[in-house]
Amino acid sequence: MKLYDYYQSSSAYRVRIALNLKGIDVERVYINLTKGEQREEAYAGINPQMQLPSLVLGEGEVLTQSLAIIEYLDGVTPESALLPIDPVARAQARAIAMAVAIDIAPINNLKIRKFLASELHLSAEDVKVKWIQHWIEDGFAGIEAMLAQSPHTGEFCIGDTPTIADCCLIPQVFNAKRWECNLAPFPTIRRIAEHCDAHPAFAAAHPLKQPDAPQATA
Amino acid sequence: MKLYDYYQSSSAYRVRIALNLKGIDVERVYINLTKGEQREEAYAGINPQMQLPSLVLGEGEVLTQSLAIIEYLDGVTPESALLPIDPVARAQARAIAMAVAIDIAPINNLKIRKFLASELHLSAEDVKVKWIQHWIEDGFAGIEAMLAQSPHTGEFCIGDTPTIADCCLIPQVFNAKRWECNLAPFPTIRRIAEHCDAHPAFAAAHPLKQPDAPQATA
Repeated sequence: MKLYDYYQSSSAYRVRIALNLKGIDVERVYINLTKGEQREEAYAGINPQMQLPSLVLGEGEVLTQSLAIIEYLDGVTPESALLPIDPVARAQARAIAMAVAIDIAPINNLKIRKFLASELHLSAEDVKVKWIQHWIEDGFAGIEAMLAQSPHTGEFCIGDTPTIADCCLIPQVFNAKRWECNLAPFPTIRRIAEHCDAHPAFAAAHPLKQPDAPQATA
Repeated sequence: MKLYDYYQSSSAYRVRIALNLKGIDVERVYINLTKGEQREEAYAGINPQMQLPSLVLGEGEVLTQSLAIIEYLDGVTPESALLPIDPVARAQARAIAMAVAIDIAPINNLKIRKFLASELHLSAEDVKVKWIQHWIEDGFAGIEAMLAQSPHTGEFCIGDTPTIADCCLIPQVFNAKRWECNLAPFPTIRRIAEHCDAHPAFAAAHPLKQPDAPQATA
């Protein structure tokens, strides 16, 4: 299998965590989103959405969308399950994953940030403070309440083993720190993030540990 | 089961289609998003994200996030499967669902539209033309290419029976028409939408056929 990856893509980061949790080794191809390599013909032919990640299977089939890729991996490799067996806990794991992947991440991605600056003429500071910090903190408030209220919450988002929810939450916490969000109001999110940070599968997937990350910050 | 619903919520519309395809009857409670009823204490206690839809099970457990709800329904009611059995086709169904639910819908939802007007001072016309039409058409371009290239595409998004992909695509096509997007460049999307429109499960889920829709437009 071949993963199209970029150290700073939070969607690719989710899949890196899942692959590490499953113990699956893949070949990596790096697509520099900042340089716009995702829009070059070679990659657009692989993923018509011109986004990361893409996972190419042995037979050449291309899988796209991070959560669909994680669900696929979990379906074909039942060991280290990333979804609980109980249907309600399973729905809760997916709901938390989606509260990140739907309600926070797409609103703040590179495409939107560039559009706010170029088309709506927002300053870099306004993009950061008025937009990114606002939507991350707004989204985390909902997730914090979900986690604080749920009987399923354990050391990880659901119980005491990592699931698809943690694969999504941790890259979002990384982004929140990168954009200097105030995480003080989110003690459950912080506690789970600290627990994940100590887990080797999460640690090895960290953006600054990837081969394509700038050396200076690695 | 009890569905918290609103005729104009595209996430609720996805779940209405899935319930109709499964032939599952549920009690409905209507939450008027335009009036802000989702932020009232009664509903915030049910869904801490203060969003629609929520599905309350017989035992009182609350499921949130439209795609997590659809996956739950598909898991517990295997008849009229909303996901293909083949793992690659299954991943493609989820990828198309997410290309709508992640890459288009959240960028254009009511919360964002209100923020663009109140905080970034965009006119109603700029919100419509510069923002909504831009992001729907940008997102549809990727989905059109996915559908046109995929060997799985049939009368519906995946093969000749409806899946979770169609449950997501059709509400987005409804929204695209509502916001007067140009759908000419998307022949595959238009063909599939026409096919779904003729299906009773999709027709009965249409926003303007819901009991809480304004009478004048019903």
